[in-house]
Amino acid sequence: MIRFECDYAEGAHPKVLELLSKTNFEQTPGYSVDMYCEKARVIIKELCQADKADVHFLVGGTQANTIVIESILRPHQGAVSAETGHINVHETGAIEATGHKVLTVPSDDGKITAGQVMLVYDNHWNDASHEHAVQPGMVYISNPTENGTLYTKKELTEISEVCRRLGLPLFLDGARMGYGLMAEGNDLTLQDIARLCDVFYIGGTKVGALFGEAVVITNQYLKKDFRYMIKQHGGMLAKGRLLGIQFIALFEEGLYFEISEHADRLAMKIKAAFEKKGYPFLYESATNQQFPIIPDEKLEVLKKKYAYSFWNKVDEKRSAVRFCTSWATREEDVALLVEDIRTL
Amino acid sequence: MIRFECDYAEGAHPKVLELLSKTNFEQTPGYSVDMYCEKARVIIKELCQADKADVHFLVGGTQANTIVIESILRPHQGAVSAETGHINVHETGAIEATGHKVLTVPSDDGKITAGQVMLVYDNHWNDASHEHAVQPGMVYISNPTENGTLYTKKELTEISEVCRRLGLPLFLDGARMGYGLMAEGNDLTLQDIARLCDVFYIGGTKVGALFGEAVVITNQYLKKDFRYMIKQHGGMLAKGRLLGIQFIALFEEGLYFEISEHADRLAMKIKAAFEKKGYPFLYESATNQQFPIIPDEKLEVLKKKYAYSFWNKVDEKRSAVRFCTSWATREEDVALLVEDIRTL
Amino acid sequence: MIRFECDYAEGAHPKVLELLSKTNFEQTPGYSVDMYCEKARVIIKELCQADKADVHFLVGGTQANTIVIESILRPHQGAVSAETGHINVHETGAIEATGHKVLTVPSDDGKITAGQVMLVYDNHWNDASHEHAVQPGMVYISNPTENGTLYTKKELTEISEVCRRLGLPLFLDGARMGYGLMAEGNDLTLQDIARLCDVFYIGGTKVGALFGEAVVITNQYLKKDFRYMIKQHGGMLAKGRLLGIQFIALFEEGLYFEISEHADRLAMKIKAAFEKKGYPFLYESATNQQFPIIPDEKLEVLKKKYAYSFWNKVDEKRSAVRFCTSWATREEDVALLVEDIRTL
Amino acid sequence: MIRFECDYAEGAHPKVLELLSKTNFEQTPGYSVDMYCEKARVIIKELCQADKADVHFLVGGTQANTIVIESILRPHQGAVSAETGHINVHETGAIEATGHKVLTVPSDDGKITAGQVMLVYDNHWNDASHEHAVQPGMVYISNPTENGTLYTKKELTEISEVCRRLGLPLFLDGARMGYGLMAEGNDLTLQDIARLCDVFYIGGTKVGALFGEAVVITNQYLKKDFRYMIKQHGGMLAKGRLLGIQFIALFEEGLYFEISEHADRLAMKIKAAFEKKGYPFLYESATNQQFPIIPDEKLEVLKKKYAYSFWNKVDEKRSAVRFCTSWATREEDVALLVEDIRTL
Repeated sequence: MIRFECDYAEGAHPKVLELLSKTNFEQTPGYSVDMYCEKARVIIKELCQADKADVHFLVGGTQANTIVIESILRPHQGAVSAETGHINVHETGAIEATGHKVLTVPSDDGKITAGQVMLVYDNHWNDASHEHAVQPGMVYISNPTENGTLYTKKELTEISEVCRRLGLPLFLDGARMGYGLMAEGNDLTLQDIARLCDVFYIGGTKVGALFGEAVVITNQYLKKDFRYMIKQHGGMLAKGRLLGIQFIALFEEGLYFEISEHADRLAMKIKAAFEKKGYPFLYESATNQQFPIIPDEKLEVLKKKYAYSFWNKVDEKRSAVRFCTSWATREEDVALLVEDIRTL
Repeated sequence: MIRFECDYAEGAHPKVLELLSKTNFEQTPGYSVDMYCEKARVIIKELCQADKADVHFLVGGTQANTIVIESILRPHQGAVSAETGHINVHETGAIEATGHKVLTVPSDDGKITAGQVMLVYDNHWNDASHEHAVQPGMVYISNPTENGTLYTKKELTEISEVCRRLGLPLFLDGARMGYGLMAEGNDLTLQDIARLCDVFYIGGTKVGALFGEAVVITNQYLKKDFRYMIKQHGGMLAKGRLLGIQFIALFEEGLYFEISEHADRLAMKIKAAFEKKGYPFLYESATNQQFPIIPDEKLEVLKKKYAYSFWNKVDEKRSAVRFCTSWATREEDVALLVEDIRTL
Repeated sequence: MIRFECDYAEGAHPKVLELLSKTNFEQTPGYSVDMYCEKARVIIKELCQADKADVHFLVGGTQANTIVIESILRPHQGAVSAETGHINVHETGAIEATGHKVLTVPSDDGKITAGQVMLVYDNHWNDASHEHAVQPGMVYISNPTENGTLYTKKELTEISEVCRRLGLPLFLDGARMGYGLMAEGNDLTLQDIARLCDVFYIGGTKVGALFGEAVVITNQYLKKDFRYMIKQHGGMLAKGRLLGIQFIALFEEGLYFEISEHADRLAMKIKAAFEKKGYPFLYESATNQQFPIIPDEKLEVLKKKYAYSFWNKVDEKRSAVRFCTSWATREEDVALLVEDIRTL
Repeated sequence: MIRFECDYAEGAHPKVLELLSKTNFEQTPGYSVDMYCEKARVIIKELCQADKADVHFLVGGTQANTIVIESILRPHQGAVSAETGHINVHETGAIEATGHKVLTVPSDDGKITAGQVMLVYDNHWNDASHEHAVQPGMVYISNPTENGTLYTKKELTEISEVCRRLGLPLFLDGARMGYGLMAEGNDLTLQDIARLCDVFYIGGTKVGALFGEAVVITNQYLKKDFRYMIKQHGGMLAKGRLLGIQFIALFEEGLYFEISEHADRLAMKIKAAFEKKGYPFLYESATNQQFPIIPDEKLEVLKKKYAYSFWNKVDEKRSAVRFCTSWATREEDVALLVEDIRTL
C-alpha cells in the first residue's frame, strides 16, 4: 500500500531527527526559554522581516488555534471563519470550549473575502439588538485552506485592510504554510503574511517536523501574557527545546522551503494525470492536497494499491477524494500512481 | 555548570531516540490509532494487570490532568486536592479554565489522607446550603507528590476505599511514577495503583521520553468518549505513533524501571551527603527530588558549580532548595557533588 | 404611540401583582424552597400530568436555556438547533460561554424535522473522524418558534421518537408556550409536551408575569443536582417565592390560558386585516407574533401611530415587520390598527 | 415563629411595590433602556457623585459578581479574595465556571488588608515560574463583609492605593451596602466608595427591593461592552424597568438609607442584649448581622420562638449563630427577643 491519505504519515525529515539526536544530552532550561528556541526565534523573525514579533512554539494546530483565539477575544466575542474552517469543523469544539462562538460565513473553496468580513461586521453593528448577539472580535483564515486553495496577495491585502479598519485582528492558520508559499502561482511571501496579519503560525507538523507550530505575533497589542495562555492550555512543552531544535533544522538552511517545493511538484504531477484523464476537481488547488472527482468504479481499482482520503459523494457514481503529498513522498511512488491513473 | 535543577533538562534516553529513528519512514495512520500505540497499550495494560483498561497517550502533564478531570466532573463539581497539588499551584488555572474549582485540603508534605477526603465530603453534604457550594466530584493525588513523598499501600488503600464508598473517582498523577515505584521503601506496585485508582497516568516526560504521558483508565464508567476530550483540548497528536513508540522503548524491556532506579539511587547518595553534613530536609523523600535546607552562605558556594531549584526561605539564614536526579544524571557528577557537600 | 413591538412592554397581569402584594409581609425561606413554590410545582405538575417531574423556577429565558443545556451535555457535545434558534442568534453566545457548540440545521420557519435530527446524527457518526467534531448531545426546539410557528402533534411525536431512539434528550423552549397552546389549529397539549420532551419550560415573562420561567424536567436522568447548576449560573433567586407566587397566580385558576387566548385572538384580527389588504406574511403564524410584509411607504404611515419591530428587508420596496400582541393588548388599540390597515 | 435567619425573608418595602403597581400598565422598551432605568441611573450617579459612571441593573448578587469579574479578567487571571469571600464559598463555583481561579487570602473577620494584596502580587511576580501560576488580575472585597464587619475609610483607602499602584481593579460587593453605610461608627460614604473602587454594586435584594443590584462602574476602562456580558450570563431582564422602578423607589427620597438605619438600630438592640448577658460574638459587627456565641442549651430555648441561622460549633457546649434584622423587622419582635435573651 502506498499512502497518499495525509501529510503526516511519517516521522520527521532526517535532518530534524539528526539535530535532535546531536543535541540530546545537552542540558537546557525547560519551557522554551533555552538557547535553541531563542535561535529559532531569531531565524523565523528574520525570514518574516518582523524583528519586533514574538515567536512561540506549540505542539499542534488545534492548540495553536485555541490559544491564539482565546488570547485575543473578550468573552462576548467570536471569531469570524469560513464555515469550512478547521476551527469550525475539525477541532471538536475547542474554540467553543473556551467560551467563544465561531461566526461562520459561507465558502465554496475554503476562502473568505474582505466583503464577507465587512458584511458580518455591518450586520452585527446595524442590528438594534446587537448586544444580544455575539460580537465579531477577530478574523480567522487558513492559507493554504483546508481545501488546498490559496489567497492571492490582493485578496489577503483586502482582508487585512478591512480588518484593520474595523479593529478586528487577523489570524492566519498556516498549518500547511510551506506548501502554499512554494505553490506555482502563489504571490504571497512570508513577509507579506507577517505584514498583513496580526498573528499567524508556520506549521511544522505537516511539513517535516515530528510536531510543532511556530506562532508569530506581529501586533504588539496581542503579545501580552501569551505564555500564561500557553501554559493554561497545556501547550507549554517541558522540554521546549525540542521545538526550537526542529525549527532550526527546518529553517536555518531553507529545508522547509525545499521539502515543500518537493511536495507541491509531485502534487502537480498527480493533478496533471487526473486532468489528462478528464477528471474534474472539487477544488482548484496548486498545493499538496488534490481533490479529484473520480468514478466510484475507478476508485475501486485505485484503492487496491493506494491509500487516499474519502471526501464526499458528488453524485450517484462519483466521489471526491483527497490525495496528499508531503516532504516524504517518493518520486517513484508518484510515477507509479501517474501511470496507474493513465491506464484506469 | 552541572544541572540538578529538574528532571527534564536533557532530551530522551538514547533507546527512545533510536526507536524513533528506526521507525521514522514507516507510514502509519495519525492520531494514535496506529500499531505502535496499540502495542504500547498492550504492554502497559499487561504491566498494570489491567487488561480491560483504556490507555491513551498525551503529550504533557497539564494536558493529562486537565483532560482527565474535565472528563469526569459535571459542571458544578470540583476536584479535591492537596493545596500543594500541581493542579492547584502550577498549571496557571488550567482546571478552573475548564470551569471547575480545585477543592483544597491542607498538606504538610504533598499527601492527603482518607480522613481528609471524608471530611471534605461530610462538610459539604452536612451543610444545609450545600447547593451554594462546589460539590466534591473526584479526588486528585500525585505519587510521588510534588514534594517527592510517597503514599504507602496502606494509605492509598484507605483513600481508595473512602473514594469508592463516597462515589468519588480517584485520579493519581504519576508524572514521576517511575521514581516512586523504584524508591527504597516503596511498597506500591503499578498493579496496586491500577487496582486502587480509577484513572492514573504514567509519566514519560520526566522519566526518559522526549515527552508523553500514558493515561490509564480502569473504571469503565470513565472511558466513554475520552478521545473527543483529548481532541477538544488540543491533546490529539497528529503523529500519534511518536507516543506509542516512546512508550514501547521505555516499557518493552523494562528500561523505564531501570532508569528510574538509577535516578533514585543517585538521589540517595546526595541525600546521604546532606544528612551526614547535618542538614535537615524540608520533606522526607526517597525519590529523585531532594529538598535539603542549607545555610545561605553554603548555597553561595554550591551555586558556582551546580544548578538547583530554589524552593523557599526557611528562616533568616537558611533556604530549602531542590536537587533532582534523572535517568540522565551521571555518576561522576553526583560523586563531585557529594564531595563538595562534604567539604562545605 | 401604541406599542405592538414585543410581548413584554408592560409589567404583570394585575392578579399577579395582587398576589405578590397580598403575600408581601409573610416570611418564607429563600431560594425557592418555600411553600408557594411548592404549591406552584404541584399545580404545574398536575397540569402536565407529570407527577414525577421536577419543576424549577428561573428568572428568564436565556438563563433557562443555558442552565438546562449545560446540565445535560458533556463537554464535547453540542445542542442541535434550528439556525434561527434563540440560543443560536439571540443570547450573545450564552451556550458557547458554557463550552458547547450549537449544531445548527437550516430552517425556513423556525422549525426543524425529525429527519434533520437523524441526518445530523448520522453525518456525525458516519464520519470516520467523528472524534474531531462536536458530538450531537441533545436537541433544542422552541414552540412557538421565534417566528410564531407551531409544531403539530405529529411533528413533535416524530422528533421525540427519533430523539429517544438516538439517545438525544429533547428540550423544548416554551418562552411563549401559552400563545402556542391557545392558538387556533394547535393540537398539542401541555401533557403532550410533557410526555414527548425530556425537559421544557413554560414561559411566564412574556405571558403575564413580571418575570419567570418554569422548567419542567420529566426525564429522571436529567434531574440530578439541577439546583447546583441554577446557583452556579446566577439563577437562584434569593426571594424565590416571588416566582412561585406568580406561577400560582397564573395557573391556579387558568389565567395563563385565558390571557394567552386573548392575545392570540387579537393577533388573528391583525392578521386578517393585513390579509384582506393583500399583504403576504414572512411566516405563517397562528400565534401572538405576526410578520406581515409591507410596502415601505405604508410603513412610514403606520409608524406615526404604532410601534412594531423591524424584521428584515424583503426586497427594494418592502420590509417584513413584527406585530406582537400580549395579555395586555387592548381591544380598542387593535380595532384602531385594523381600521388604519384597511385605509392604508 | 419570629424569623431572624436572613434579610430576605419578606417581599419588598411597600413603597417599592406601590411604584411597581402604579407603573404597571405603562409600555416601555425592554432590557433596561427605558426611562425608569435611566432616571434611576441619574439618581444613583448623583448620590455617588460619579456623573461619568455607568450604572447597570442586575437581578442578583451571584450574577453581579460573576459578570463583573468575568468582564474584567483575562483568561489567565484570577480574583484576589478573602477565603471567606462570597465568591469563594457560596456561589457554587460561579467564578470558576467562567474560567477564573479565586486567589484566596486568609481572613479572620471577612476583611483583607492592603498588605495582603501586595503580598499576593509580590509572591506571584517574584516567582520565577509565575507563568505557571494564575496571575492576580483584580481584587474582590465585600462591605459589609459576609461577617457583618466593615472597612474603615483608612483601610479602604489603603487597599485602593495599592490596587491602583499595582494595576489591579478593585471591586466591592455591596450586597448589604445600606446596612454598612448606616452603621454606627462607619466612616465610609457612597461617594468614598465610588471614588476608591473601580466598580461596586449597591444591593437591593437584601435592602428593601424584591430583587436587584445596581452595578456602578467608575473606571472607564471597565465599561466597554458590559451589556453584552450581562446578556451572555442571562442577566438581561426582559422587563428591565422593574429594576429601575425599584431603585427609584429606594433612592429617590432616601428610603434605602432610612430602612437600613432601622435594621442596624434593631440589630444593636439585639447585640446589646447578648452583651449584657455576657455572651461573646464570633465577629464584631455594627451592622444588621449579629453572630453571638450561645450555650447550646440556651439555643434550645430560643429556637422554640425564633428562627436564626446556625453558623458553626465553637466548642463542645457553645455555637455561633446568626441573627439578622432587615427593613422589615418589627420593633415589637426585637423587644420580645431582647426580653427573652435577658431571661435566658
